[in-house]
Amino acid sequence: MHLEHDFLGEMEVPDNVYYGVQTLRAMENFKITGQKLDSDFVDSLAIVKKAAAKANILTGRLDKIIGEAIIAAADEIISGKLHDQFCVDPIQGGAGTSANMNMNEVLSNRALELIGDKKGNYERISPNNHANMAQSTNDAFPTAIKVCAIRKGRILVSSLQNLALALDEKAEEFQDVLKMGRTHLQDAVPITMGQEFAAYASSVRRGAERVEDVLRRLYKVNMGATAVGTGLNAEPEYIREVAKQLAEMTQEPFVTADNLVDATNNTDVFADVSGAMKVTALALIKIANDFRMMASGPRCGLNELDLPARQPGSSIMPGKVNPVIPEVLNQTCYQVIGNDLAVTLGVENGQFELNVMEPVMAFNIFNSMMYLTNAVDAFNTLCVQNVKANKEQCEAWLEGSVGIVTALLPHIGYENSSMLAKEAYKTGRPVRELILKKRLLTQEAMNIILSPEEMTQPGIAGKRLVNM
Amino acid sequence: MHLEHDFLGEMEVPDNVYYGVQTLRAMENFKITGQKLDSDFVDSLAIVKKAAAKANILTGRLDKIIGEAIIAAADEIISGKLHDQFCVDPIQGGAGTSANMNMNEVLSNRALELIGDKKGNYERISPNNHANMAQSTNDAFPTAIKVCAIRKGRILVSSLQNLALALDEKAEEFQDVLKMGRTHLQDAVPITMGQEFAAYASSVRRGAERVEDVLRRLYKVNMGATAVGTGLNAEPEYIREVAKQLAEMTQEPFVTADNLVDATNNTDVFADVSGAMKVTALALIKIANDFRMMASGPRCGLNELDLPARQPGSSIMPGKVNPVIPEVLNQTCYQVIGNDLAVTLGVENGQFELNVMEPVMAFNIFNSMMYLTNAVDAFNTLCVQNVKANKEQCEAWLEGSVGIVTALLPHIGYENSSMLAKEAYKTGRPVRELILKKRLLTQEAMNIILSPEEMTQPGIAGKRLVNM
Amino acid sequence: MHLEHDFLGEMEVPDNVYYGVQTLRAMENFKITGQKLDSDFVDSLAIVKKAAAKANILTGRLDKIIGEAIIAAADEIISGKLHDQFCVDPIQGGAGTSANMNMNEVLSNRALELIGDKKGNYERISPNNHANMAQSTNDAFPTAIKVCAIRKGRILVSSLQNLALALDEKAEEFQDVLKMGRTHLQDAVPITMGQEFAAYASSVRRGAERVEDVLRRLYKVNMGATAVGTGLNAEPEYIREVAKQLAEMTQEPFVTADNLVDATNNTDVFADVSGAMKVTALALIKIANDFRMMASGPRCGLNELDLPARQPGSSIMPGKVNPVIPEVLNQTCYQVIGNDLAVTLGVENGQFELNVMEPVMAFNIFNSMMYLTNAVDAFNTLCVQNVKANKEQCEAWLEGSVGIVTALLPHIGYENSSMLAKEAYKTGRPVRELILKKRLLTQEAMNIILSPEEMTQPGIAGKRLVNM
Amino acid sequence: MHLEHDFLGEMEVPDNVYYGVQTLRAMENFKITGQKLDSDFVDSLAIVKKAAAKANILTGRLDKIIGEAIIAAADEIISGKLHDQFCVDPIQGGAGTSANMNMNEVLSNRALELIGDKKGNYERISPNNHANMAQSTNDAFPTAIKVCAIRKGRILVSSLQNLALALDEKAEEFQDVLKMGRTHLQDAVPITMGQEFAAYASSVRRGAERVEDVLRRLYKVNMGATAVGTGLNAEPEYIREVAKQLAEMTQEPFVTADNLVDATNNTDVFADVSGAMKVTALALIKIANDFRMMASGPRCGLNELDLPARQPGSSIMPGKVNPVIPEVLNQTCYQVIGNDLAVTLGVENGQFELNVMEPVMAFNIFNSMMYLTNAVDAFNTLCVQNVKANKEQCEAWLEGSVGIVTALLPHIGYENSSMLAKEAYKTGRPVRELILKKRLLTQEAMNIILSPEEMTQPGIAGKRLVNM
Repeated sequence: MHLEHDFLGEMEVPDNVYYGVQTLRAMENFKITGQKLDSDFVDSLAIVKKAAAKANILTGRLDKIIGEAIIAAADEIISGKLHDQFCVDPIQGGAGTSANMNMNEVLSNRALELIGDKKGNYERISPNNHANMAQSTNDAFPTAIKVCAIRKGRILVSSLQNLALALDEKAEEFQDVLKMGRTHLQDAVPITMGQEFAAYASSVRRGAERVEDVLRRLYKVNMGATAVGTGLNAEPEYIREVAKQLAEMTQEPFVTADNLVDATNNTDVFADVSGAMKVTALALIKIANDFRMMASGPRCGLNELDLPARQPGSSIMPGKVNPVIPEVLNQTCYQVIGNDLAVTLGVENGQFELNVMEPVMAFNIFNSMMYLTNAVDAFNTLCVQNVKANKEQCEAWLEGSVGIVTALLPHIGYENSSMLAKEAYKTGRPVRELILKKRLLTQEAMNIILSPEEMTQPGIAGKRLVNM
Repeated sequence: MHLEHDFLGEMEVPDNVYYGVQTLRAMENFKITGQKLDSDFVDSLAIVKKAAAKANILTGRLDKIIGEAIIAAADEIISGKLHDQFCVDPIQGGAGTSANMNMNEVLSNRALELIGDKKGNYERISPNNHANMAQSTNDAFPTAIKVCAIRKGRILVSSLQNLALALDEKAEEFQDVLKMGRTHLQDAVPITMGQEFAAYASSVRRGAERVEDVLRRLYKVNMGATAVGTGLNAEPEYIREVAKQLAEMTQEPFVTADNLVDATNNTDVFADVSGAMKVTALALIKIANDFRMMASGPRCGLNELDLPARQPGSSIMPGKVNPVIPEVLNQTCYQVIGNDLAVTLGVENGQFELNVMEPVMAFNIFNSMMYLTNAVDAFNTLCVQNVKANKEQCEAWLEGSVGIVTALLPHIGYENSSMLAKEAYKTGRPVRELILKKRLLTQEAMNIILSPEEMTQPGIAGKRLVNM
Repeated sequence: MHLEHDFLGEMEVPDNVYYGVQTLRAMENFKITGQKLDSDFVDSLAIVKKAAAKANILTGRLDKIIGEAIIAAADEIISGKLHDQFCVDPIQGGAGTSANMNMNEVLSNRALELIGDKKGNYERISPNNHANMAQSTNDAFPTAIKVCAIRKGRILVSSLQNLALALDEKAEEFQDVLKMGRTHLQDAVPITMGQEFAAYASSVRRGAERVEDVLRRLYKVNMGATAVGTGLNAEPEYIREVAKQLAEMTQEPFVTADNLVDATNNTDVFADVSGAMKVTALALIKIANDFRMMASGPRCGLNELDLPARQPGSSIMPGKVNPVIPEVLNQTCYQVIGNDLAVTLGVENGQFELNVMEPVMAFNIFNSMMYLTNAVDAFNTLCVQNVKANKEQCEAWLEGSVGIVTALLPHIGYENSSMLAKEAYKTGRPVRELILKKRLLTQEAMNIILSPEEMTQPGIAGKRLVNM
Repeated sequence: MHLEHDFLGEMEVPDNVYYGVQTLRAMENFKITGQKLDSDFVDSLAIVKKAAAKANILTGRLDKIIGEAIIAAADEIISGKLHDQFCVDPIQGGAGTSANMNMNEVLSNRALELIGDKKGNYERISPNNHANMAQSTNDAFPTAIKVCAIRKGRILVSSLQNLALALDEKAEEFQDVLKMGRTHLQDAVPITMGQEFAAYASSVRRGAERVEDVLRRLYKVNMGATAVGTGLNAEPEYIREVAKQLAEMTQEPFVTADNLVDATNNTDVFADVSGAMKVTALALIKIANDFRMMASGPRCGLNELDLPARQPGSSIMPGKVNPVIPEVLNQTCYQVIGNDLAVTLGVENGQFELNVMEPVMAFNIFNSMMYLTNAVDAFNTLCVQNVKANKEQCEAWLEGSVGIVTALLPHIGYENSSMLAKEAYKTGRPVRELILKKRLLTQEAMNIILSPEEMTQPGIAGKRLVNM
């Protein structure tokens, strides 16, 4: 153990750790979730620190030897080392100061080691003066959130795109599966299961685009804003350079925000990111719900879709198989929506020059990204890719249905069609039989109008008859 | 027009209205929803003012002639008159000061008329000195919210109780309708529709109790707290008396809160009230969803329940009838849940001695109460009371099902039951046939075990066989 | 009164109204909010109907005389007439069928009158066959929501832009008001009130852009999708034409959605629109909160900003003036966030070929747009445009502050600065005095470093000293 | 490794683990959060299993040797052993079947070992037939959630009570700290800091009672409901006994729900529990916000309250100390509110005989309980217990204030008081001076009316003067 001090006093720090007194204080102060900083976030913060060190070397403010030691330490972290040194709770007071100082301390101590000095000799390399040079938690922390959110967000986008592809493949596979379209859960008019799956794919693809779009809003970083956005202690050359370094290191087009005060005060962009996931989750819920309804039964439900059996469905009911993958997707989406409210409340509570609630925003955005990616991947690989359509069942439903009378509308009018439907329901007789019996159409005309291709494509079913 | 002034200056007030300068200012300041104060709330605030006037007469602070004129004016309002004089927007800044002053002005002007004086002669009867005597917006306004919420809440409770009764009647009607129970939308084990409806009734009745319970928390009022809860300018005798008067006038056991500062600062009780409606809405959503699924089809869905047809279901699809009443119940419940978040945010934002966001809380609580009452009544009278079970369809589903193998568990074990189920699904053969074919049970034993009464009541189906 | 019938039976319809049997049924079924359809929405739906009628005339399917009568009737509605004929509750079951049929009935009856026939003669002009030709509620209703949301949304965008302009003007006015920047509500480093207001303007402008951006997603309409998105009964020529007509009539670039099934099933775009308002509301809350805190006092608070007095603040506390306009902005924003949850729940609950919860989405989106526009306008004109900075007070605060030590960091290091701050707090002595006493800097150097322009612009305060 | 099978096929299971094939499948299926089942929940589920085993022994259905081996295995788990064997993700599909089967498998395998048999010999002791005897996931899982929620909830209640005690102690300590009361953040009338803290204590105590109250609703369990609530395969004697055993083991008054179908279908009670935490969180947010505002400054803010310094507040601003503990309380409360929405969505989505979304409800309820307990404890011990009032600053504020004119109201009327306030603000002169100058009151009368005790207790300040 060795002694370290800050302006509140001294504390004993174990010799074998790389963090210091401020991390220790934070560990005492924040025991909320029992979790640690997200691993991607640790990397992202190290990247931000490295970019700052590079920029500080370039402006000449940071001694090159010290700067390169800090960069080397950051590189170790980025390569996956030292992650056990990041011990502060993700839900923390202080607007991320503890996370930032945890990083500053680890970087400084490791940098000291790398130049052959011993840990704790902050006179030589200081967490505040060197690792944090020209920075404040108020710029470094939100910038690292952005770096991390883009990293995790890209993975989510890719998962969503893969899901869309899988749905598209199924759309092709199911293009000849004619089935009853349902609105209000009531029989409507025919559609193909391929059309349904193509719509799912389209909706998921829009979700991928929505998330991808919103990630673009994260490119504007406030590095150089320092404490309140005015840039105190950050030189203009540094400000220009640090965003450039960040862009180069990440291969993402990070730029300095136009208004650094705004970019420091406001966190609405995090609500945007979370909100994009929320809306995408809503679209996924709809698909999962449809899957569960189409797979309902198997004997006492719709039974239109066979989901791959993943596990026995019940501890008591033998032979039961449940749609566990869509169910877990549903629940994950509820979590994402709940997380979005936590983010919303965080964003709501900025004051003056800072929103100190950034840690809870980051916690929820990262969790939502990770959970949603996992659930989407599971849905894709463990469910969608192996679903099978029950073509016979779909056709059997349609065969007995009344909803096809809608196709007759342009031929016999709403009133007649309506009476026909009413009689079919009342008597239980097939619509086709009634049409012929009532001589509303010839057999030939009826067959044309009620053919699947006529009924599932734009246009008046049997239009050529009208023109005859 | 005549001139009125307050300490911000003078304004012209039309001679034919009963409100005054402060109402006019509020009408200019708050044009948000375009709506007016809830009518029940106007009554409730008049009741509060009447109680205060009575208490002030009793303590001797309020001149009897003036006091009784104010009381007479309040009685007119309570009887439904002058409601067109309450013109301020329900979403207003100022923590309800505008609503309170609107009432104080109308009371004073009408009281002046009643004693033969002319409107505006505030030297004689003053909105601030007389109508508002010993009060502040900060006690009168939240107290009026409570009076109003109890009034509206009781109506909601009664609607929920009526719905529970209707569901219970249907439970009895449907007690012999045996059907497939479903979990995960998958066939589980048999149940009766009567059991389902009894569960709906039980859940709705719990909702009624939940709302009724939470209304009790509204009995504690902060009349006498005045501006910040310390009771400045409110005499102890007055404080004792005003709650008593309120209780007498409303026949509800209103009492003075134990801690008037707490009762003035905090509005958590409004979040409780809104939250109780939210949870009750969740239970109603479940019922509406079940109704819509059971009524799905009629040909390509479950078709277990016939909802009364209320209107043609489609502008294009003849003969279609949609479950519009459950659908409007669903949507109303979504609104109630959304409103609850608005209340939540209001309650979140109290500061120091007051939560100035009370108007938005009141707006949403009153709307939720009204909308939910309306939707529950519609669901009860336009749907539940006339639903019919499709007994034949329910039985047909069950006939072909496999889920009944669960009943065999105590007799042949999970493993055997499971294999049986698997074979039934694979071959499409009825379970009963396979049981006999595999000689797992005798015909007689099977019939006993798989009889409806054995399968839908607690106990091992066919237990007597085990004991044989 | 005259008799009308639909396939559920007959009803008496008053002779003097333009709606018919289906509207009457809806009025009986849906008594939830007591409100009527939004007036802009009525216009928007009439526009959609007119576009459809034009397209149907062009394809030759709709008789020209009938079609032009329908168009003339639509034009009357668009010009503000007949709005009292739209009586259905905005929260309605049936996915908007009642709103659509209300419009179809009014159009048909008025069109009948216009061609000299009498109302109710649906054999000649029929709500379903003519006014609704080639349409379904499932395409016409969501399209009208989009038309209306764009119309209302543009007004909101314009209000936000005006607010941003007003804030920018104030930013210029306040550019020399030096004040203490605050993070965590704790004294941080200096900033100008001009910088703060410029950040507010920037944040509001981003809000305007966010809403404007999201409105673009509404251009894709599903006209021609008819019942389930397959386009049954809608000819390809019609589909091409109807979007074109819509675009011409509204001067907005409406186009047919790529995937009509997707565009009919899914309503995520409405969650996007509502979500954009939610995030914008969060940014406004922050500004309103800052205003309220800066205006706190006047004697026992920050007292940095004078809000224009809008009304007496209290019924009991003389002379009190409250920040009622920021308060009503806050509450309106809470309502918008609550409404967003109602929209979210609606969007969550689509099933198969339709999301029947569209009415509750529309209700909340329209309300949020209207309320938010109103509150933003009030905030702009009744508050922002007349706020005044208390320059003296701002400077007085700063004078006594310790936070300026941050500017010394590059000159004397974090450690020394930290000890200096500590001593200043402990002794209550001014920082400048201590600097000189401890001979940390010369008077001249100190004055340069601690000058306002050095401290509120990017760069090391007093950098030239470093380079000396 | 050894082979195990279920009706989906065979899998290799490591020899050294106690779980089996179904746990393995679940581990493959659900990789969402990367977390494991809550440790308290594992205990709770073991308790439920033990109660069931006892009841089954008592009814004679479960062989005593097997039953006691299962009980012994359960006891080991309850005592903290084998917790590493519970590997399934808390967010899981299947309504908790995987958690239930994980427990059933561990119990069976450990029981087999305890009777000297080898793991996997399910012929002898079977996860489904013995460990799960007379149970279904649909009763055992929600019952275990209730047991766990009561356990965790009691700890939360106790933390809240401790916080209330600490606040009460401070209320006593601060009873003579006279300060300006604030409404709308504007100077109102005097109050003592003791009164404020007593109100905080009262509000927190109500929170404790609210949570305690709602836990009572968890006593009704559905053990014996089995799959769909009908009690199939659960004997009436067993049903009676199992709740009794549960009550004895936990010393909590668990009882069988009146309507087992309702208790199995519906999860509204979980929304109640989560909602109670949400409302309590709202009250805590208010306190944390007040603390942060009272501690604002220290030079450029209210500076009425000194929070204990917990860590350096900034990586860049020397000497800054932030209110990190109230800030982390705030953020935890946002998380609790977000979690409540996830629970709400789960509860919303029950269908027919089950709500399969129970896992996400449990996950969020347990997290909220744990996080909130941690944050409340931190707030209590690291902040409240050591806050100090800045009496001098409080008095200095009050000295210069105008708000005290309210106390003059009963003596000189609203109009005069109002003009007095206006002049004081305009001229900057002290109110007392103006009163005397204008001869509104004698010096003696003024001193009596404006004395602290008169102004902070109910009654007309200086009433005896009125009566003179």
